[in-house]
Amino acid sequence: MDQNHLTLHTDKYQINMMYAHWKNGNHHKIRAFEAYYRKNPFQGGYAVFAGLERILQYLEGLRFDESDIAYLREQEEQYDEEFLQELRQFSFTGEVYSVKEGTIVFPNEPLIRVEGRLFEIQLVETAILNFMNYQTLIATKAARIKQVANDGILLEFGTRRAQEASAALWGARAAVIGGFDATSNLLAGKLFGIPTKGTHAHAFVQDARTELAAFEAYANALPDHVTLLVDTYDTLKSGVPNAIKVGHKLKEQGKTLRGIRLDSGDLAYLSREARRMLDEAGLPEVKIVASNDLDEYTIQSLLSQGARIDTWGVGTKLITAQDSPSLGGVYKLVAKLEGNEWVPTIKISGNPEKVTTPGRKQLMRIINRHSGRAEADYLMDVEESLEGVEKLKLFDPIHTYLHKFVTDFDAVPLHELVFSKGERTTAAPALDELRAYHAEQKGLFWNEYMRNLNPERYPVDLSQQVWDTKMKLIAEHTKKEG
Amino acid sequence: MDQNHLTLHTDKYQINMMYAHWKNGNHHKIRAFEAYYRKNPFQGGYAVFAGLERILQYLEGLRFDESDIAYLREQEEQYDEEFLQELRQFSFTGEVYSVKEGTIVFPNEPLIRVEGRLFEIQLVETAILNFMNYQTLIATKAARIKQVANDGILLEFGTRRAQEASAALWGARAAVIGGFDATSNLLAGKLFGIPTKGTHAHAFVQDARTELAAFEAYANALPDHVTLLVDTYDTLKSGVPNAIKVGHKLKEQGKTLRGIRLDSGDLAYLSREARRMLDEAGLPEVKIVASNDLDEYTIQSLLSQGARIDTWGVGTKLITAQDSPSLGGVYKLVAKLEGNEWVPTIKISGNPEKVTTPGRKQLMRIINRHSGRAEADYLMDVEESLEGVEKLKLFDPIHTYLHKFVTDFDAVPLHELVFSKGERTTAAPALDELRAYHAEQKGLFWNEYMRNLNPERYPVDLSQQVWDTKMKLIAEHTKKEG
Repeated sequence: MDQNHLTLHTDKYQINMMYAHWKNGNHHKIRAFEAYYRKNPFQGGYAVFAGLERILQYLEGLRFDESDIAYLREQEEQYDEEFLQELRQFSFTGEVYSVKEGTIVFPNEPLIRVEGRLFEIQLVETAILNFMNYQTLIATKAARIKQVANDGILLEFGTRRAQEASAALWGARAAVIGGFDATSNLLAGKLFGIPTKGTHAHAFVQDARTELAAFEAYANALPDHVTLLVDTYDTLKSGVPNAIKVGHKLKEQGKTLRGIRLDSGDLAYLSREARRMLDEAGLPEVKIVASNDLDEYTIQSLLSQGARIDTWGVGTKLITAQDSPSLGGVYKLVAKLEGNEWVPTIKISGNPEKVTTPGRKQLMRIINRHSGRAEADYLMDVEESLEGVEKLKLFDPIHTYLHKFVTDFDAVPLHELVFSKGERTTAAPALDELRAYHAEQKGLFWNEYMRNLNPERYPVDLSQQVWDTKMKLIAEHTKKEG
Repeated sequence: MDQNHLTLHTDKYQINMMYAHWKNGNHHKIRAFEAYYRKNPFQGGYAVFAGLERILQYLEGLRFDESDIAYLREQEEQYDEEFLQELRQFSFTGEVYSVKEGTIVFPNEPLIRVEGRLFEIQLVETAILNFMNYQTLIATKAARIKQVANDGILLEFGTRRAQEASAALWGARAAVIGGFDATSNLLAGKLFGIPTKGTHAHAFVQDARTELAAFEAYANALPDHVTLLVDTYDTLKSGVPNAIKVGHKLKEQGKTLRGIRLDSGDLAYLSREARRMLDEAGLPEVKIVASNDLDEYTIQSLLSQGARIDTWGVGTKLITAQDSPSLGGVYKLVAKLEGNEWVPTIKISGNPEKVTTPGRKQLMRIINRHSGRAEADYLMDVEESLEGVEKLKLFDPIHTYLHKFVTDFDAVPLHELVFSKGERTTAAPALDELRAYHAEQKGLFWNEYMRNLNPERYPVDLSQQVWDTKMKLIAEHTKKEG
């Protein structure tokens, strides 16, 4: 059962549409779709884009093998053999533009634009959204946690509660993009080069004659990286004193007890007391690791209570994005190529937020040269340019009378071509680089937009041309309806 | 990047403990662990066990290949080469007992018991919990939805919002166990033999000149399975009338329009009106499919408003278990083999619900022969037997004065040996069978325990022997503490 071969990891209607387009002779027509989300997760002010690496690997591997063909033939007797023959030759020939993983992004911004034949452009929708939605969610949750943990070390510990294996694996990677330092999952470490961390479980202590015997056995086996779990019996009466004994023994051998781990109880109180006991025992170098249902809210609360915790192990609430477990990313038709001309399209909805913004768009970040901070993001047609523009008018796309002018700005393009002619056009970046890029990104924004609680809405504005096109298409549509 | 090879899909501390046990010469000692959960998800009264098939495939595939060994060597310089050599010969040699997928289960019941060497029994904890926790969660959510949908057809539509690929795939399978009929995910269909369903997207309609032209093109391509999405422009003014035109044309060809699909708006009102229009047009056979953020609560509400919906497409809220996105399953040491004797072990906690129940246990379901309904579940030691027992005392394990006697009962064992001597001992059951078994199971329980809102607590009782052992170990522990 090969779950790496993901060509059929798509909704059946995508294949039905491929078939209908093929049957009606439309399958070579070229279209552009954009992927974006409408609402920030976690009631926050932003999201952190992730999932691109997975998407590019998926696109490169797209092939219908004989078992796929046989399955489709058996599923749907109506498919012509010629169609199945066409699938045998299938590869993804489209072009993909995307923002980089780790980029801070906002609602209604095109994150990925896919241009290609109708025959392929719908097929990939399901998997692209599946990967982008989940990984963006986790990178965002991680960034929110990083924001409160400051210089604390952050460990991803969620595998056992993750929503199946690939969530655990790609979720660990997304967490690192958002600012985490390491994971407990060894396969994630192996696949993505993430540092891995782990010590021992309560069962290891229970299995030994005494807690001290367990600690000594562990320290004996791995003397260079000893972190001891001190809450199996009684943290302050037994766990910490036994850890201190082991710490002294290690010192005699010229080694160091790295840390103790608290996994239950009142972490604020226990960490302060444990810190005091360790310091008084001459072991100020021993770090305190804490875990147990942590997230940005509990970490902030613990810090405000003076908890003395150096390292945070974060599990369930990160890896399942517990308070907001899905991102509603969508993938919408924005333009059709007719002859040599790209014609923008719109989807009208009774629900104003669901009206799409027509045309193939570039995403620019407008940076004020004085403050070094981002003023707004700016969507313009791919044919537009800001070269030589000295004074840019930014206006709210809903309440258009709200506007300002920026001068003295840099316009940073956020999209790059990442896939073309059947292969990726950029090397896979090192995870470290993406993490550093994300951290840098954070420095671009005023805290008003970044704070976890009640953030201000960051402006995402349309160019005059994009706005005019949208209004024109809405008017045409309204007229048609009478 | 082979994500099927899951040996390192585990927490680093498991390998560290393997190493410490090996280093201290304890790795061949035999232990028993049980996996269970403490609290029903979704504030419900039960869960539906799933994940076993995945677990058995995982256990059969457990091998450290050379790339795993190289990775571990590089990760941890402290590992002896002899240990790595031992890993090269590793396979899972333990025994696994489990309830069957589809079984209705309750808090604190051992769902899986693993017996094996310390060298292997911890390694598998992480993946077992990862698979069991997620798939049980989704099967449970599906069962809750099935409960309100009655004879409505249920389609799993969640892939694009699932938490990565393996959640979409194994989640679709778990949904079928819980009562769903089909999925949109073709790979899930291929891997697990699930029927797949799908029609076309809004983009297909937008791409055509008119809605009617899109409908005709689709019906032309796949005339035997036409379901039309009618809400791209205006459901009642445009979508349904155009679908009716296509329905009439198909009739002329001796074919049948299978259905229309509503994906937005007031589904109660729209489905009633659409039903009326279809009936008046002489198309009473056309089914109505609805989707859009559905779950057990919205489906129940729509039905109570007289919605005329035949088929429900359920996405995000099922596949992410949105209102309860993690199941807190745990895996605890319950006994040690010393010489030829299994010695029960306990884990005490300041939190009374977290105290474990010692010993290797069987799980029996006590069925009243008169009513045919389940009276209680009963945990007894694996050495105990109910053969010849005519009158069984059931008592509450917390408030022990609450008790009753049952006579005239059947005791159905729920555990079976599923893995032994390196391989599964049972053939993989057909998914249909598991679904039917689950549906049968539901008939065993009074509705008081099954209802979605404010269910009664179903009794899970301990045998006198298990209870006595637990009390004895608690007393010993308390004494030791002074």
